[in-house]
Amino acid sequence: MASLLLRKVRPLGGDTVDVLVTGGVIARLEPEIATYPADTTLFEGENQLLLPGLVDGHIHIDKTFWGLPWRPNQAGPHLIDKIENERLLRKELQLSVAEQSEGLAREAIARGSSWLRTHVDIDTENGLTNFEGVLATREKLASAIDIQLVAFPQSGLLTRPGTLELITDAVAGGAEVVGGLDPAGIDRNPAGQLDAIFNVAERYGAMIDIHLHDRGELGAFQIELIAERTNALGLQGRVAVSHAFCLAMVDDTYLARLTELLVENDIAIMTHGPGSSPFPPILKLTESGVRLFSGSDGVRDAWGPFGNADMLERAWILSYRSNFRKDHEIERALQLTTFGGADVLGVSDYGLEVGCRADLVMVPGDTPAEAVISRPVRSMVIKGGTLVALEGRCLV
Amino acid sequence: MASLLLRKVRPLGGDTVDVLVTGGVIARLEPEIATYPADTTLFEGENQLLLPGLVDGHIHIDKTFWGLPWRPNQAGPHLIDKIENERLLRKELQLSVAEQSEGLAREAIARGSSWLRTHVDIDTENGLTNFEGVLATREKLASAIDIQLVAFPQSGLLTRPGTLELITDAVAGGAEVVGGLDPAGIDRNPAGQLDAIFNVAERYGAMIDIHLHDRGELGAFQIELIAERTNALGLQGRVAVSHAFCLAMVDDTYLARLTELLVENDIAIMTHGPGSSPFPPILKLTESGVRLFSGSDGVRDAWGPFGNADMLERAWILSYRSNFRKDHEIERALQLTTFGGADVLGVSDYGLEVGCRADLVMVPGDTPAEAVISRPVRSMVIKGGTLVALEGRCLV
Repeated sequence: MASLLLRKVRPLGGDTVDVLVTGGVIARLEPEIATYPADTTLFEGENQLLLPGLVDGHIHIDKTFWGLPWRPNQAGPHLIDKIENERLLRKELQLSVAEQSEGLAREAIARGSSWLRTHVDIDTENGLTNFEGVLATREKLASAIDIQLVAFPQSGLLTRPGTLELITDAVAGGAEVVGGLDPAGIDRNPAGQLDAIFNVAERYGAMIDIHLHDRGELGAFQIELIAERTNALGLQGRVAVSHAFCLAMVDDTYLARLTELLVENDIAIMTHGPGSSPFPPILKLTESGVRLFSGSDGVRDAWGPFGNADMLERAWILSYRSNFRKDHEIERALQLTTFGGADVLGVSDYGLEVGCRADLVMVPGDTPAEAVISRPVRSMVIKGGTLVALEGRCLV
Repeated sequence: MASLLLRKVRPLGGDTVDVLVTGGVIARLEPEIATYPADTTLFEGENQLLLPGLVDGHIHIDKTFWGLPWRPNQAGPHLIDKIENERLLRKELQLSVAEQSEGLAREAIARGSSWLRTHVDIDTENGLTNFEGVLATREKLASAIDIQLVAFPQSGLLTRPGTLELITDAVAGGAEVVGGLDPAGIDRNPAGQLDAIFNVAERYGAMIDIHLHDRGELGAFQIELIAERTNALGLQGRVAVSHAFCLAMVDDTYLARLTELLVENDIAIMTHGPGSSPFPPILKLTESGVRLFSGSDGVRDAWGPFGNADMLERAWILSYRSNFRKDHEIERALQLTTFGGADVLGVSDYGLEVGCRADLVMVPGDTPAEAVISRPVRSMVIKGGTLVALEGRCLV
């Protein structure tokens, strides 16, 4: 692997430096690097920002229509309508999961993501088809993006006998994370679904990431149940709850109690900054020590038309929805899509220090906040020391 | 003025047609136009969408930092902090209002806006400086964009004696609209401010557009006061309320009563789809017959970093914030930034019919909803029959 020298870049908006990438890691980071290996490729940064590779911690690349002709949304208003509609459409369209997920993963690369955590639908109708399609994409694009898989019971776990066995097979076969979905609202048995999920995670040493849309006290109760199991099994730091709208719907006293449970058990919270639903208060939670991360959620699929796998735009959405106007606030939103996500996904050596893996994004902008607000085309994306995107075009 | 022939475009996503523009209007619109004047310039639409020129019905082009180096936001949390901070910054920076407003207006043109209604700060410290700067921009860019001016008492009307006289001078000198600002929250005298504003409007035949951030029942009470004065003076169809967060904060019974008042007095409501504040329910109000429109609000100014004068992105924001996922819902949001805005601003001959003024935007997309969701670069913008932007670049 040849070396790369990025000349005159500003890591996270700091002072201008030169960065030498060798062997896939940041080897040197100095005001000026005048001597370097003979096979080094030089890039002029022209004082652009350097960010660590973006982390999309919650996406559904198996089910996207990205790249296909526009398809007006047909789903009914309720969660269960959307689930049913998707299963029907999947039969009708017969899309290739490998092709679709690859197309969206390439878009993510072009927009600067170095890591994805993707939830993959597993059900008794479709078996492991989606899982295998995404596995193929993971393998094909392994040099350009890391993809972490969540075995996700999109159609329910206990209500569809046989699903748990499939989920277990997926975890045994390469999914790093066991998923869950509204243990009360969908499965009608919160303790039951959670016991099943935690059992799989414990047996296989997997992480856990549970979709929790259930609202108000019903959602909050399930956060208590998740914390109890995390504590009992010693899975601190291995469990995440996605969406968790309920954290924005309970009173301050109850929120303080839930926050304590999240911190004590090191349970992370994912929010994509939903358009109209209440969502977890970012500043309050991070200041209390809760680990937060973010993701695209669905991207142009049977659920809805939104999303584009752009984690700078996601930070913009988090900022706009949180009324963040100051640089330090906007950079807090960006933290969810960089260091926050890397931490939850368990990425080692993440960052812009010497010795860190060279997952890098170069963008125009004076401060990271400006990059979030302007969402410019990514000038350059580097993954593990290799150039993978240039001026918004994926090169792999 | 030479003729333009747009070949193979799809007005609002309908069937493919050719459109001949002559003398600044849509002269012909037919499946295929084979004969046309000799001096006609041809453009190949390649089945792209044709939309009417976008309408930014609420922007503040006099105070933008657009085009300047990034300036981290410094304002305090309250409305009054932001007002004070802006007046201080204005003194410190000594920006040229003409230059700043022209730069942002060019951006609006590049993004497909044919009409702006801009609120222009008028106060006793700054006099008519901002007003005169925007007047210069209006004159300079008259062939490329229509700009309607609101004489806006940003620092209060009654609390700053002398402001009303300046507002009156601006209306006498070319502002089509009298502005107002939180008659209760800022001026501490709702009946007093409204009487003053309505008096100016009546004397000069001006329209009215009032910023109303006051929340809950306090805001709702002022909508009642506005309706009473609209009715008393026969100003139906001439009055707008901007923001009107209160319409999302009162109970259903009170909302129904307010809706009746708005419809009876033909008072229009502007929402920009705020990030974190409640905002007027778009479907409910339009279905009740309330006229809605939208705008950018502030664009990268002392108030905050958001905004980019893009009314397709604004329709995206309205859709995302309203949880609009279906084409007909997303197109309702787009309606606020096209026909809805044109109606409130009093644009005659607006639309895509033969005889309409040729204010046109060409964008890629299968349906108008897709264009909103994808927010692509505008392929072509035509104003009054003249090409004013191409591939996102303003040509004037």
